[in-house]
Amino acid sequence: MRVAIPLYPRYTALDAVGPYTVLATAPGCTVTFVAAEAGPVTDDQGTLTLTAAASYADLPDPDVIVVPGGLGTLDALSDEALVGWIREAHRHTRWTTSVCTGSFLLGEAGLLRGLKATTHWALLELLERFGAEPVSERVVIEGKIVTAAGVSSGIDMALTLLAAAGGAETAQAVQLAIEYDPRPPFNAGSPGTASEETRQRALNLLS
Amino acid sequence: MRVAIPLYPRYTALDAVGPYTVLATAPGCTVTFVAAEAGPVTDDQGTLTLTAAASYADLPDPDVIVVPGGLGTLDALSDEALVGWIREAHRHTRWTTSVCTGSFLLGEAGLLRGLKATTHWALLELLERFGAEPVSERVVIEGKIVTAAGVSSGIDMALTLLAAAGGAETAQAVQLAIEYDPRPPFNAGSPGTASEETRQRALNLLS
Repeated sequence: MRVAIPLYPRYTALDAVGPYTVLATAPGCTVTFVAAEAGPVTDDQGTLTLTAAASYADLPDPDVIVVPGGLGTLDALSDEALVGWIREAHRHTRWTTSVCTGSFLLGEAGLLRGLKATTHWALLELLERFGAEPVSERVVIEGKIVTAAGVSSGIDMALTLLAAAGGAETAQAVQLAIEYDPRPPFNAGSPGTASEETRQRALNLLS
Repeated sequence: MRVAIPLYPRYTALDAVGPYTVLATAPGCTVTFVAAEAGPVTDDQGTLTLTAAASYADLPDPDVIVVPGGLGTLDALSDEALVGWIREAHRHTRWTTSVCTGSFLLGEAGLLRGLKATTHWALLELLERFGAEPVSERVVIEGKIVTAAGVSSGIDMALTLLAAAGGAETAQAVQLAIEYDPRPPFNAGSPGTASEETRQRALNLLS
């Protein structure tokens, strides 16, 4: 499978690198970071730069796309090179996926109308703007469109995708290879389990 | 806190980017990728390139170091610029940490003698070579030295570190900000829960 992950200014690094690590570890997958032009693209903390190996034009027909979110996503909605690439690539994909606010870019490309979808908990209701039905789940599968919740959920999404695409055995082997046996030190990773104070602090970190 | 993450040829991307995302999201933390020379460094899949913003010489005295592992770690044991930087930086750190086989680099720097430590499950016993006592735990804290298990464990390690350094409230807010509410689709992330067949498949992926 040829997987493409688009990078745009101020993406969130883990949105991209979580699924990348899962998929690039799987046999038979090649993952390429793409951007408007090949070259360095910096994340939303301003301190991590990934290199896009190819331009959108170089990879118009990937089998899978994984669209990351980030603090730059809302600005990226008016990036017609990116949104147009997503729309066109989707015609060819086996899976069209997003992590976190990356789902807004799928929405802007017109791909979520009438579908259930998810995104980061803090911005879930914004999905309605794109004609989607927001659902608070970790990974939402609607035909070939797969959306995932905030940031770290891309790891779960990519493993789910691998299981669907290559069988449970492959997904389990990759899970073990990356020793994905999570042990969060707190039960604060969801707005349903975190305190109201934690919620406010998290919103401050995201603003 | 000034955090430095060294990059060397063929590191594993998630080892570095998991802790990066946790720590860079926290208030008052700045994270810098460093390398022998500032510039691009490619991972162990050959398809992801991060930019080191600074050289080892530029950042000799960080408050925290996070040493990633990767398929290139065993070669990196003879990289005296890297090992020497780790040894010297450790004299100044508040925390000296590693993810996955990154602990072998701490060991090569002479920092693990007589201490409990961990690494990727597949290579756990190798820690004895460095005078450490291998333990099969997700995160191992020995004074200011913190080692974590394979790849994805760096997220748990960084949240544990944040809680120790900045208080549970900060760690919980970051956990919620990155929506770290993991839902692995399988219970195969540890050699204790995966089948023997999965274990063999995972070893094949890592070789």
